[in-house]
Amino acid sequence: MKLSLPAQTILLPSPVLIIGTYGSDGRPNIMNAAWGGIASSKPPCISVSLRAATLSYHNIKQTGAFTVNIPSEKYFKEADFVGIVAGRERDKFKETRLTPEKSKLINAPIVKEFPYAFECNLVKQIDLGLHTMFIGEIVGMVADSEVLNPNQLPDIEKVRPILWGSFGSMAYYNIGGKLGDAFSVGNEFKKEITDL
Amino acid sequence: MKLSLPAQTILLPSPVLIIGTYGSDGRPNIMNAAWGGIASSKPPCISVSLRAATLSYHNIKQTGAFTVNIPSEKYFKEADFVGIVAGRERDKFKETRLTPEKSKLINAPIVKEFPYAFECNLVKQIDLGLHTMFIGEIVGMVADSEVLNPNQLPDIEKVRPILWGSFGSMAYYNIGGKLGDAFSVGNEFKKEITDL
Repeated sequence: MKLSLPAQTILLPSPVLIIGTYGSDGRPNIMNAAWGGIASSKPPCISVSLRAATLSYHNIKQTGAFTVNIPSEKYFKEADFVGIVAGRERDKFKETRLTPEKSKLINAPIVKEFPYAFECNLVKQIDLGLHTMFIGEIVGMVADSEVLNPNQLPDIEKVRPILWGSFGSMAYYNIGGKLGDAFSVGNEFKKEITDL
Repeated sequence: MKLSLPAQTILLPSPVLIIGTYGSDGRPNIMNAAWGGIASSKPPCISVSLRAATLSYHNIKQTGAFTVNIPSEKYFKEADFVGIVAGRERDKFKETRLTPEKSKLINAPIVKEFPYAFECNLVKQIDLGLHTMFIGEIVGMVADSEVLNPNQLPDIEKVRPILWGSFGSMAYYNIGGKLGDAFSVGNEFKKEITDL
């Protein structure tokens, strides 16, 4: 039975985006954000929405740069931790023992232990209410060689990213099995229809 | 070893968003989009980025409304199909045998067979280059009662959403197992640190 429900921001799956920034004092910070996604292909852009209450919001406003780091499943506790505590009060890199490495392209830190990261320069900022959407142009990426496929692209089966189940489960998940090839299994379906 | 790579729009995981719209002639259409995510909590907003070449782009411009339908894993072929073929040339609902149902709140169709959908009115449109980002305010949701948790929220373990592995695998995946509770496992980690 279909039910009508009040509006909820429960997108399934939601990604686990670890946003890296520097403060005006050069101190690196990371936070866990789930509100974001790819925004465009050309130029390549990614968006992340943050509350003005966060240190990351102010850091991005000041530096005009951020990284989006994708944690592998073995770092799900660290990913959760950096979403629970405030960067103004704690040194999240130190407490998690994660290592900040300055991006060669932009003014923001990369999480060394995570399999790959987007290096972004802020291009647009859209105030939507409680959250401000920051759109960053992806100017480069950094990845562990072990998570790349033969074409040097991050492979989901090697990255083993974390999914957030959002408010309906309040839990993290890993990826399961392969269902089928994209831009391919649909053709199969089309053929089934045509054959009728 | 960390490698520097050219910019790529490979976010892991990427969601599978099935965008529902009506044409000016009232014909329902659906397309598969991966560029999008939650944009803000208050007001609740979701974004999806589309190319001007798509019928959905023009439909949203005309109607100012769209749905974001979340397919369950058993519909991965249908989801792929509606991303391969063009709405101007084919009746995607008819060919997939999916059923359009008009939203009670907005001027866009819901995919009856999919477990839940967001009902959105367009509030902002941001031209980024090849893609235009449409930000919709979520004014309501529709869900199958079977995919809800006791608090009437969509539960990822019941929804069984599809993940897209993006360009590194060009394949769809399902969700795996639970890693741990959000806003919780990080505290455990924090305690481990404090105990040192």
